[in-house]
Amino acid sequence: MGKGRLEAFSDGVLAIIITIMVLEMKVPHGDSLASLRPLLPVFISYILSFIYIGIYWNNHHHMLHAARQVNGKALWANMHLLFWLSLVPFVTGWMGQNNFATLPVALYGLVLLMAGMAYYLLAQSLAALDGKNSTLAQAFGKDWKGISSIVIYAAGIGLSFVNHWLGFATYALVAAIWFIPDKRIEKKLVKDQSKEEI
Amino acid sequence: MGKGRLEAFSDGVLAIIITIMVLEMKVPHGDSLASLRPLLPVFISYILSFIYIGIYWNNHHHMLHAARQVNGKALWANMHLLFWLSLVPFVTGWMGQNNFATLPVALYGLVLLMAGMAYYLLAQSLAALDGKNSTLAQAFGKDWKGISSIVIYAAGIGLSFVNHWLGFATYALVAAIWFIPDKRIEKKLVKDQSKEEI
Amino acid sequence: MGKGRLEAFSDGVLAIIITIMVLEMKVPHGDSLASLRPLLPVFISYILSFIYIGIYWNNHHHMLHAARQVNGKALWANMHLLFWLSLVPFVTGWMGQNNFATLPVALYGLVLLMAGMAYYLLAQSLAALDGKNSTLAQAFGKDWKGISSIVIYAAGIGLSFVNHWLGFATYALVAAIWFIPDKRIEKKLVKDQSKEEI
Amino acid sequence: MGKGRLEAFSDGVLAIIITIMVLEMKVPHGDSLASLRPLLPVFISYILSFIYIGIYWNNHHHMLHAARQVNGKALWANMHLLFWLSLVPFVTGWMGQNNFATLPVALYGLVLLMAGMAYYLLAQSLAALDGKNSTLAQAFGKDWKGISSIVIYAAGIGLSFVNHWLGFATYALVAAIWFIPDKRIEKKLVKDQSKEEI
Repeated sequence: MGKGRLEAFSDGVLAIIITIMVLEMKVPHGDSLASLRPLLPVFISYILSFIYIGIYWNNHHHMLHAARQVNGKALWANMHLLFWLSLVPFVTGWMGQNNFATLPVALYGLVLLMAGMAYYLLAQSLAALDGKNSTLAQAFGKDWKGISSIVIYAAGIGLSFVNHWLGFATYALVAAIWFIPDKRIEKKLVKDQSKEEI
Repeated sequence: MGKGRLEAFSDGVLAIIITIMVLEMKVPHGDSLASLRPLLPVFISYILSFIYIGIYWNNHHHMLHAARQVNGKALWANMHLLFWLSLVPFVTGWMGQNNFATLPVALYGLVLLMAGMAYYLLAQSLAALDGKNSTLAQAFGKDWKGISSIVIYAAGIGLSFVNHWLGFATYALVAAIWFIPDKRIEKKLVKDQSKEEI
Repeated sequence: MGKGRLEAFSDGVLAIIITIMVLEMKVPHGDSLASLRPLLPVFISYILSFIYIGIYWNNHHHMLHAARQVNGKALWANMHLLFWLSLVPFVTGWMGQNNFATLPVALYGLVLLMAGMAYYLLAQSLAALDGKNSTLAQAFGKDWKGISSIVIYAAGIGLSFVNHWLGFATYALVAAIWFIPDKRIEKKLVKDQSKEEI
Repeated sequence: MGKGRLEAFSDGVLAIIITIMVLEMKVPHGDSLASLRPLLPVFISYILSFIYIGIYWNNHHHMLHAARQVNGKALWANMHLLFWLSLVPFVTGWMGQNNFATLPVALYGLVLLMAGMAYYLLAQSLAALDGKNSTLAQAFGKDWKGISSIVIYAAGIGLSFVNHWLGFATYALVAAIWFIPDKRIEKKLVKDQSKEEI
């Protein structure tokens, strides 16, 4: 009930975020290869952010698919997630335009960390709503993946003050971990269905 | 009939409004913490506007869910609401970039007031369409909540000329009132269903 | 078959057009009433364009609802309509920022004229697809409304060279004519259904 | 399973790409015909890109319609396609604002080539998923059309270094080839259905 419109709204916001990020790559004035060069860091941060938004869309899709219902609290938990993701174009632009300087890299990580927390909270609120024995509650039981991501983001923020490339590499690592859609839900779904068949 | 596409279009517009607002937070040139400081008021007004659009989406969602039908008049009442909400990114930017100066705060309130009125008119037109005994008509019977919000917005505009922070605080207060999705509709729906069961 | 996704895509494009138009109202630097004054013509043209896009969405909605099917030709006729409508933010900005000067007003009219033609072609292609006796074919039989709008737009372009406000007033007149959703389709649908019942 | 939301997300991204491209046509300061003239190359590249995004939407629509299912790999193949298409507004702006200079024309072609490859990979992954005897697998059997487009794009990039207009003409040629929606799928669908009837 209402799940459909929540998905539609989230899809809309994620589609816009992923697309307006490209507006931070300002068209350069010259027509030479040299005029493109300053855009290279912006392009690299664009790629990472594109992958991140793609991962969020993908996992959000899987989680909502498994969720049986949503309520007011879940709607706001979702809005909270979209809030932090809506800041991604800003921090992507700041990080890229400043050639991966320390503070922008740290702030980029902070936004990822907050989004990671918001996703964790959304997952927990959906799992609680579906009940202890639901697919979602068991798939997200301890949610080691969600929690460890948050820890690694925090480490990445710290590392970015040691060496900004270390920070960036840490964020790329978390992206790699999440790249594959969340198998836990699929596994649980398959198990539940085979149980029902018995 | 047509309700689905009205929801889809409104979702689209609201998703875009909420996302392009972030474009008013221009990426600063420096990479220091000091270069971020001027963005703080813009960020604060962004948060308030994000919550407001979220509230509108949430309540719009509930109201349309309960509505049995839409007609030409309701389509335009909805368009009228979207018009005022489409001005939110502009007034958010103006208020934030001028550090909550009196006139921008008052204009921000005026746009909220007009959006509040437009929402009231939409609710009334949908309730009238569904008939006197409908869930919607009874939930929105006197619509004290809608009317008092409009009155408080007006008070907020006045107060912003006394002290601009008072104006801002008043708008935040209305947001807090509306934060929780409209229970009236849910209550009425539950009541109607239990009656039917008897 | 495929009608749903055509509607979804058109809704998306129209929702974005209507929302990014507001980006042409650049946030002014000052915080006084005087700093808002130069935005007044931009705001007026924004209102007219908002109404126009609203009208197009509304009538597009009605037409697609009545259409039984779409084919490749109809998809491109629809894309052609979206192309001209996508230019509306540009001509709205040009007209507003130049205080309704002659040439911008004429170009605004030209874009409206082309969009009007594109809508006419789309209606004809959908009606042809549904067959001579279809609801759509009979509702759009001679399509006096579509053709006369195009003629009035052309007149408006001419008049804008006499006096730019005359041009603007002419476009506002066509908007007023179309403001009410196309009754022809609803009438035909009701007739067809009562026939079937006999 | 999940196909619907993949289509919705892709539609959203494509609708935004096609619409924000128009933001690269900056509203000129003067109100004379002369002030519009510098925008002519931007307008021409806008038209070509609009047609390209329209073609991708159209064919994407057909392909997904025929696909029976999607999986994680297909979701990422789709995201990869959207990534390259998201760069179209940037290269369109760069090509237009530099009056079709050699390098921007070549880069425009490169983005088209990468998008063409991404589309090919998406088609192959969907066809593999549906199985050897599926409609999709047989329609895209050798996919001469997809492969030859990629070859022609590569030729166009090369030709743009000989004469930039040659490059542009080559890209327009590929657009013309793809303008008509992919008949292969429709043909195969009709064949399969007539077989089933026997």
